[in-house]
Amino acid sequence: MKRVLISLPELNIEQKAKLAAAAEGCELVYVPEGAVTRDDVEGAEIIIGSVPAGLLHQPGKLELLQLGSSGADAYVADGILRPGTVLTTCTGAYSQTVAEHAFAATLMLQKKLHLYRDAQGRREWTDCGAVSSINGAVVLVMGLGEIGRYYARMARALGAYVIGVKRRPSAKSDCVDEQCLTEDFDAVAPRADVIVSFLPGGPATTHFYTLERFRAMKPGCIFVNCGRGSAVSAETLEQALRSGCIAAAAVDVFETEPLPAESPLWGLENLLITPHASGFFHLPATLDRVVDICAKNLKAQLTGGELMNVVDFKTGYKK
Amino acid sequence: MKRVLISLPELNIEQKAKLAAAAEGCELVYVPEGAVTRDDVEGAEIIIGSVPAGLLHQPGKLELLQLGSSGADAYVADGILRPGTVLTTCTGAYSQTVAEHAFAATLMLQKKLHLYRDAQGRREWTDCGAVSSINGAVVLVMGLGEIGRYYARMARALGAYVIGVKRRPSAKSDCVDEQCLTEDFDAVAPRADVIVSFLPGGPATTHFYTLERFRAMKPGCIFVNCGRGSAVSAETLEQALRSGCIAAAAVDVFETEPLPAESPLWGLENLLITPHASGFFHLPATLDRVVDICAKNLKAQLTGGELMNVVDFKTGYKK
Repeated sequence: MKRVLISLPELNIEQKAKLAAAAEGCELVYVPEGAVTRDDVEGAEIIIGSVPAGLLHQPGKLELLQLGSSGADAYVADGILRPGTVLTTCTGAYSQTVAEHAFAATLMLQKKLHLYRDAQGRREWTDCGAVSSINGAVVLVMGLGEIGRYYARMARALGAYVIGVKRRPSAKSDCVDEQCLTEDFDAVAPRADVIVSFLPGGPATTHFYTLERFRAMKPGCIFVNCGRGSAVSAETLEQALRSGCIAAAAVDVFETEPLPAESPLWGLENLLITPHASGFFHLPATLDRVVDICAKNLKAQLTGGELMNVVDFKTGYKK
Repeated sequence: MKRVLISLPELNIEQKAKLAAAAEGCELVYVPEGAVTRDDVEGAEIIIGSVPAGLLHQPGKLELLQLGSSGADAYVADGILRPGTVLTTCTGAYSQTVAEHAFAATLMLQKKLHLYRDAQGRREWTDCGAVSSINGAVVLVMGLGEIGRYYARMARALGAYVIGVKRRPSAKSDCVDEQCLTEDFDAVAPRADVIVSFLPGGPATTHFYTLERFRAMKPGCIFVNCGRGSAVSAETLEQALRSGCIAAAAVDVFETEPLPAESPLWGLENLLITPHASGFFHLPATLDRVVDICAKNLKAQLTGGELMNVVDFKTGYKK
């Protein structure tokens, strides 16, 4: 009888039933996040949940490590898993929560609600002037994975003209009005009223948003980053916002996290800072999706089916 | 040759051309807002724009007063216009700007971006926990005029289940999933995750939102008021938010405006205050719509056609 170690946030009855149904004939062992031991790990054929990588020293029995997170960076290094262990993620489970956060931030900046909130703190009844609309806005979505497509659908549903920017060529997605490649960015960016970035980390995207690129954007442009903090340096972001290259930005990810208290970014009126909070399990629907993916992969592993979200150890991303 | 006095925010060439085309054979006199004199008013057969009511003493030549605003309260009192002068408004022109403001505020509260903005002011990298989604939310829209229907369409486009609440019976609007009457409010309100109010002023809606009604709402409910401030007293709103009857509110209209600096409402963390700013000409599209309505009514008045948005002097509202 195989042992399945499950270490996720607290699940409800339906979620547990879903995992039990997928793991017929197995022993399911629930261990709360943070309480997992080396013995728990060594005794399991299957682990569900992002157990600390430090506990993993090529566990001999482990056939499948199904992470609860969308990123796998910490688990692809040598010595963590032995060759043969399959590593899968919950990529996709977080698309709604991240895309919705980015979208809410976009509308908030368009309507200047961040400035009204500041004025409220000063007990000031002050009109902040002109606003803009998502209806008719040209919205550039950088990264057309599940998050980017979710955001694109929301923006289009409210009347935006969406340009999707991808790394690799493919047929045009139904979620966008126009699609182009990363190398076309400089040609399309000056048309955008909103640029929202879901770019992953890695050398290809590090400091992608240079000051020169911000200078080429519309002065009224709104920039939103819910991808990786490495895509823009704190210095560049500060210069772009102080100099008026763009109107405003909402940023959830930073090169240094937590953002140091002495960072000048905190004090920028036209920057909304959130503390890498768009993901996690803040939205109840996220945990439902995580359980769905885990149950599917659990069943596939046990019955010889095809697993989803399998990580390529060379890139750290989905194969 | 009839004289048409136009006193609106500064128009662009296309907007001026639209009015000129509608007023063939007339003399068009543009006077900036705030610069209109008694003589300007007395010399005009048609006035376009919300000239100060204090300048109007039943002007004898005036056939049509086409306001630039959606409200006509200040113009229906005795002695302002002589019997026979037609009074029309720009009701409808403001629906996009008001509905979008209310919608942006809804998403902002769902994602706790008001709390993140406060934390940013304190340079605090702090996770504010669980958020909610518009997708699958039950949204109650109070008032199904053009603003309410615009908001309803946005919410539904992003996956909300929308219940529209109306004063008068009518066939179900396409914009909502369910429709009921104001007297059904107490029955449906406890189902709502979001209650957004676009109720007009007047005795029937004054203090409609009593503390008892807030107590019957879901504790997680978000309340948004972009209708009239008279619908809820400052005391009731404060109690509802302090006691946790509801989770949060965004309010653009107050019984006393400007909201006095000493009001305890300013300091409520779970209340977003905006200074009656959802309307006006903050959104460029609004002025386009105002000019469209003015041009249509101008042409109708000159050619004997049917005018839109004609005010009933008894109620102060659209006939």
